[in-house]
Amino acid sequence: MAVEFRMPHDVVYYESDVTGKLSLPMLYNLVILSSTQQAIDLGIGPDYTHEKGVGWVVLQQVVTIKRRPNDGEKVILSTTAKQFNPFFARREYRILDADGNDLVVMDGFFSMIDMNKRKLARIPQEMAEAYQPEHVRKIERLAAVDGIDDDQTIDYKKEYEVRFLDIDSNHHVNNSKYSDWMVDVLPLEFLTSHEPTAMNIKYEHEVLPGNQVVSEVQVVGNTTKHRIMFGDTVSAEATIDWTLANN
Amino acid sequence: MAVEFRMPHDVVYYESDVTGKLSLPMLYNLVILSSTQQAIDLGIGPDYTHEKGVGWVVLQQVVTIKRRPNDGEKVILSTTAKQFNPFFARREYRILDADGNDLVVMDGFFSMIDMNKRKLARIPQEMAEAYQPEHVRKIERLAAVDGIDDDQTIDYKKEYEVRFLDIDSNHHVNNSKYSDWMVDVLPLEFLTSHEPTAMNIKYEHEVLPGNQVVSEVQVVGNTTKHRIMFGDTVSAEATIDWTLANN
Repeated sequence: MAVEFRMPHDVVYYESDVTGKLSLPMLYNLVILSSTQQAIDLGIGPDYTHEKGVGWVVLQQVVTIKRRPNDGEKVILSTTAKQFNPFFARREYRILDADGNDLVVMDGFFSMIDMNKRKLARIPQEMAEAYQPEHVRKIERLAAVDGIDDDQTIDYKKEYEVRFLDIDSNHHVNNSKYSDWMVDVLPLEFLTSHEPTAMNIKYEHEVLPGNQVVSEVQVVGNTTKHRIMFGDTVSAEATIDWTLANN
Repeated sequence: MAVEFRMPHDVVYYESDVTGKLSLPMLYNLVILSSTQQAIDLGIGPDYTHEKGVGWVVLQQVVTIKRRPNDGEKVILSTTAKQFNPFFARREYRILDADGNDLVVMDGFFSMIDMNKRKLARIPQEMAEAYQPEHVRKIERLAAVDGIDDDQTIDYKKEYEVRFLDIDSNHHVNNSKYSDWMVDVLPLEFLTSHEPTAMNIKYEHEVLPGNQVVSEVQVVGNTTKHRIMFGDTVSAEATIDWTLANN
């Protein structure tokens, strides 16, 4: 039975957006913080993976948001490495309020890459063992992203350049940046009158410092469909479900 | 004698840059976090100021950096509201390592504005009292910024649009964004081979969501001179001193 890991976290003002609630990109940062901290505690953190010449890659994250925590709120970050096979891992994340109620529930799908060859690598056996996960032949995939419809017009688009501070200490564009570009392209009036309730994001191709990407959106009812393009290549795609905010 | 306030903080990966050290913008976020937390503890935090219809404005910050803390490092944020007069306040910040040694020392110069009229406001007397500062007729100003020389060419410049997530819960562009734009415009090779040792930044005119700003730099020896322009208006100016990084 996989071991759940928990850590406390205080949401602070620079993790919040103009609504005073945890921003979507910071939500992605917080969950990765918890799994990195679990790995460090188990002795299989960044020092271990760097030494092995491998690194975790997030392939997809499916999140349900019951309530975004507020600036100043004390929350608990919970994560469980659920299932492993030699090449893929599936993880569950939760952000809980101080009373232990779910605020955010997320499934994450990961693989490992060889940092030099930049291709898929086997997950080291002892690393998988440390999490005491369920070993499975085939890991159930997450729901496909119901992405942008090329027969319909793009409602909003904007160009972004990958910045120095978008790169984290793993020398990659921080995953949270994709959701940043996806949110930013929406009109301010939309963002201040709507609250995200769910998001399904799939990371397809990595972008690098100095690259120019285009964030595209189609609005379909209460769902926005997103795509980050690098030239003709889809770098990431997502759907976000929204409800009217109680302002 | 003004009361020093201290709070612990763990530097996390999304507060670090590609070097694995606390990023410059996050350094500015951490110090403001400590003074906001001190104000909350004294009952004169954001709830109090919002009710009074006033808000703090950072005018200038002069920082000396002995060593940037690393991702994962436990630090102590220290702040002291040193001097007040009816319109201005001067504060000292320190970021200390776990043994209490200075990593970062900063002087900050603040005023208060009326949030509706958007003009200078008196600092409420009871608010100043709560900090037990030294009351002075004239607060010593910080060293002037030795800014860009208009007779010399600009070495690097880049345009930035104020993004949704640049706006914090005070409905202002987060102060840390100015340093973000100032750093980002420098070449990647420069940023990965140099380490900042000091910065003097003066905030002149606020920019708003959707505004286009231009970040300009002149490199003069080991100093970079910066300016954020909004049209013909100087929004912020700064100098950063650098040393060669020990990579």
